[in-house]
Amino acid sequence: MKWYIDSGKEGDVVISSRVRLARNLKGYPFTHNLSDGALSEVLQKCREAARPLGLQYLSVDAMPPINRQILMERHIISPQMLTAVRKRAVLLSEDEQISILLGEEDHIRIQCMTAGFDLEKALELANKADDALEESLDYGFSAQYGYATCCPTNTGTGMRASCMLHLPALTANGYIDTLLSAVGKVGLTVRGLYGEGTKAKGCMYQISNQITLGMSEEESLKRLSELVKMVIDKERRTREGIKRERGDKLTDLVRRAYGILQSAYLMTSDEAYKLLSDARLGVATGILQGLPLEAVNELTITTGPAHVAEAHGDVTAEHRDKLRAEIIRKKIAASGDSR
Amino acid sequence: MKWYIDSGKEGDVVISSRVRLARNLKGYPFTHNLSDGALSEVLQKCREAARPLGLQYLSVDAMPPINRQILMERHIISPQMLTAVRKRAVLLSEDEQISILLGEEDHIRIQCMTAGFDLEKALELANKADDALEESLDYGFSAQYGYATCCPTNTGTGMRASCMLHLPALTANGYIDTLLSAVGKVGLTVRGLYGEGTKAKGCMYQISNQITLGMSEEESLKRLSELVKMVIDKERRTREGIKRERGDKLTDLVRRAYGILQSAYLMTSDEAYKLLSDARLGVATGILQGLPLEAVNELTITTGPAHVAEAHGDVTAEHRDKLRAEIIRKKIAASGDSR
Repeated sequence: MKWYIDSGKEGDVVISSRVRLARNLKGYPFTHNLSDGALSEVLQKCREAARPLGLQYLSVDAMPPINRQILMERHIISPQMLTAVRKRAVLLSEDEQISILLGEEDHIRIQCMTAGFDLEKALELANKADDALEESLDYGFSAQYGYATCCPTNTGTGMRASCMLHLPALTANGYIDTLLSAVGKVGLTVRGLYGEGTKAKGCMYQISNQITLGMSEEESLKRLSELVKMVIDKERRTREGIKRERGDKLTDLVRRAYGILQSAYLMTSDEAYKLLSDARLGVATGILQGLPLEAVNELTITTGPAHVAEAHGDVTAEHRDKLRAEIIRKKIAASGDSR
Repeated sequence: MKWYIDSGKEGDVVISSRVRLARNLKGYPFTHNLSDGALSEVLQKCREAARPLGLQYLSVDAMPPINRQILMERHIISPQMLTAVRKRAVLLSEDEQISILLGEEDHIRIQCMTAGFDLEKALELANKADDALEESLDYGFSAQYGYATCCPTNTGTGMRASCMLHLPALTANGYIDTLLSAVGKVGLTVRGLYGEGTKAKGCMYQISNQITLGMSEEESLKRLSELVKMVIDKERRTREGIKRERGDKLTDLVRRAYGILQSAYLMTSDEAYKLLSDARLGVATGILQGLPLEAVNELTITTGPAHVAEAHGDVTAEHRDKLRAEIIRKKIAASGDSR
């Protein structure tokens, strides 16, 4: 089963946790300075080294655009990689918890994802993959500066950790803006749905660490965890406040969202995101029963434009809206009715 | 059972048919020139004359405002009668098909309503009531001008006949505007939901005859019937066209309306009208199954502000919106699910 068809710890607020390690091979320049031949050599070496991990190897450059977009909708590759023309690859585990990007700005980026709030598990998985690769690869590393990375902001541990949070209440009361400007001061950052430079959709925000130099992985993770815990607490208390003071309006909002998800015959991706966000809030606050969070998590991924198009062949935007509505109706019907 | 909890002939387009006869007692001035004592006398005479009809007698002037508004929402009294201060009364049959207004601008207005397109039945009921009253009342009547009425536009037959039509397709394609300006030329008129000077709500339009002088009741009814038949035909063909050319969008519209009606926790009167109109179109075009037109007809009446407030005591607007949503959810659940 794919990791995203699940909900984990603190799943009412935290959708997923991710740890990413940036690594580069010793004796080679960073990717953008590699010749095509040397790039192929690096990819081949990494592929060989990863063999014991039993991952599937996907050539991103040889892939049709729609398959790349699917990887982006699953948060495996960044939007920047959609239009990549040079050789790049992804090594992917069956459950998609582990993905290793080869030939991005760093030679190697190990990414591990878990459902819910579980940075430790994500780090553990990443470290295991890292250790396995190091068995046969020599990383660029200095005792003083740590791991060599293309972008100086990653130098040091090479680790980026992040949590994807659903913050409808803090979005509604505007606190999210305070949070966005405050976290920078503690070396953390808040971003939109698909990472750097993307917008928040469906009240989803990615909170991640910024400092990789002069701080251990553990310390960095601890700081991030503490902020995430604080935000979870604030979001929950704000939800309770809304439920207490504007309970009827909240109930109306989430039931309508659920009613439309169950009934609509055409639905755009943006509307699906909005309604799934409302429905998720309904499940988290106990107003909607019988709709499991796992179903909402799954739909958030499987209703992406590329997912819908890929499952049914190349289709027009209107036909896609029809298929999306059908996917949602069927999933909700299969998950049982909440009324 | 109340007549409006039903659907009749051509019920996909025609909600109801109505015939109204205006009558005045011989030897008395019209209502606005009657002294209070003479008005009481007229009301008493009419009440006595109507006794054989077995109708309930309601004093409109003694009624709390909310009960007057209920009568208006059931199309028994006009919005003008909401604030009446002089003595007025309504005689009402159990099923509310027959109502006789006493002390309006004419002494007597006999109103008969049927579900669907059935002007003949409405006229027949009105004539029976008229005959019964004439057993013991002397009407103001001249061989040359017919029945004396307060407003010259009613002089002659004293008959006004009308049909309430649901015209969502002709509203959508704008033909309704052509119709509104064209019907005047053939002595007919199109009005909003609660008659003269009121706006159309939920794509409901009242088409009625204008000419009462120099034309028999039958001829007048025939002209109205012909126009209504033409409009029914045009509305149906337009619906078919929309279904053929924009079927997915139509299906989406009516299913969403149904989904929201089933799910919402708060609903204003205006939204209920709009959604019930959409749902009605869904039932009429065969897209929504399992929701009977009778349930839609009933809800169109029972979700009026006064109906909701009266059934649950005096309440705030927000509480009323909650009760309205509940009334709708329960009725739909009791009518069976269409998906």
